[in-house]
Amino acid sequence: MNLSSKYLEDAVNALASLPGIGKKTALRLALHLLNQPEEKVGEFASSVTQMRKNIQFCKTCHNISDSDKCLICESNRRDKSTICVVEGIRDVMAIEDTSHYRGLYHVLGGIISPIEGIGPNDLNIASLLERAAADNIKEVIMALSPTIEGDTTIFYISKLLQKYNVKVTTIARGVAFGGGLQYADEVIL
Amino acid sequence: MNLSSKYLEDAVNALASLPGIGKKTALRLALHLLNQPEEKVGEFASSVTQMRKNIQFCKTCHNISDSDKCLICESNRRDKSTICVVEGIRDVMAIEDTSHYRGLYHVLGGIISPIEGIGPNDLNIASLLERAAADNIKEVIMALSPTIEGDTTIFYISKLLQKYNVKVTTIARGVAFGGGLQYADEVIL
Repeated sequence: MNLSSKYLEDAVNALASLPGIGKKTALRLALHLLNQPEEKVGEFASSVTQMRKNIQFCKTCHNISDSDKCLICESNRRDKSTICVVEGIRDVMAIEDTSHYRGLYHVLGGIISPIEGIGPNDLNIASLLERAAADNIKEVIMALSPTIEGDTTIFYISKLLQKYNVKVTTIARGVAFGGGLQYADEVIL
Repeated sequence: MNLSSKYLEDAVNALASLPGIGKKTALRLALHLLNQPEEKVGEFASSVTQMRKNIQFCKTCHNISDSDKCLICESNRRDKSTICVVEGIRDVMAIEDTSHYRGLYHVLGGIISPIEGIGPNDLNIASLLERAAADNIKEVIMALSPTIEGDTTIFYISKLLQKYNVKVTTIARGVAFGGGLQYADEVIL
């Protein structure tokens, strides 16, 4: 495409680098931003950079947080004897949206997937074992996607947790096999 | 959605304000940016603000430009006797991509549409008449979308151009009626 402006070209290339956004959509978004007041575009840009700069990950559960301990880990109203192990941040959001789970979380940061080159050492498993070793933890709920990779990860972690005094459970398989957890709605979960 | 971080929430809201991007997609984009190096996110943000800050519109044809006169109007290799009237910047890009048109452009900034409240005074018509009054212009090609609104605009502008010594033509109607010009490819145009 002949964009007749270097600035527009840079912005289109930046927007097209986002997942699922091609050149034509990027151009549409760039022209939309071009029609916005300069102040609003500045706010748009700063909200993105501020997010990248200031978001931290909870040192305990690896969930995103505005400080080094997340609100869920810090809360006095959560059940500190239960840990729900999930693949990513979006799974925490999906479960929190149901308002039915009152325990803590542990974000693995992925699941074991030899095809994508993700092994156990790439995940937050060591810190999970540390937490499970503490006396107060009674139950670890494995809430991973019901796929082959998810089941492999559950099996691997369950074996490691055998030597600790915790009950390992999985979420009820009401979610269709092969479906990603983050797309499940409140009723399914 | 419970996002557990004000920074993430701001970024998601900013991304969701773009056309065609909902909350779930915005969250996906925000988490993608979160996984990028801080430097890359900074470049992303600055390319958008730089675009908004520095892009100018050509004072002659209202096309986007890096200075107050666009490269097409300034070029010595263009046919200065022909003006192609288009609705928006994307139409200029579409026609330029064919490399077959050698004349100048005039960007109206929309078409007459009573439903959307766009009247003749909201468009760059006065400056088109000024240009048509100049001696060197021999032909004005109306390359508007083949819709009712496009035809109305062509009729309105053609009437105004009658008093000037210019030939008014329209592009051949090979484009399907109701289709937007910016989606037409090189072959159709």
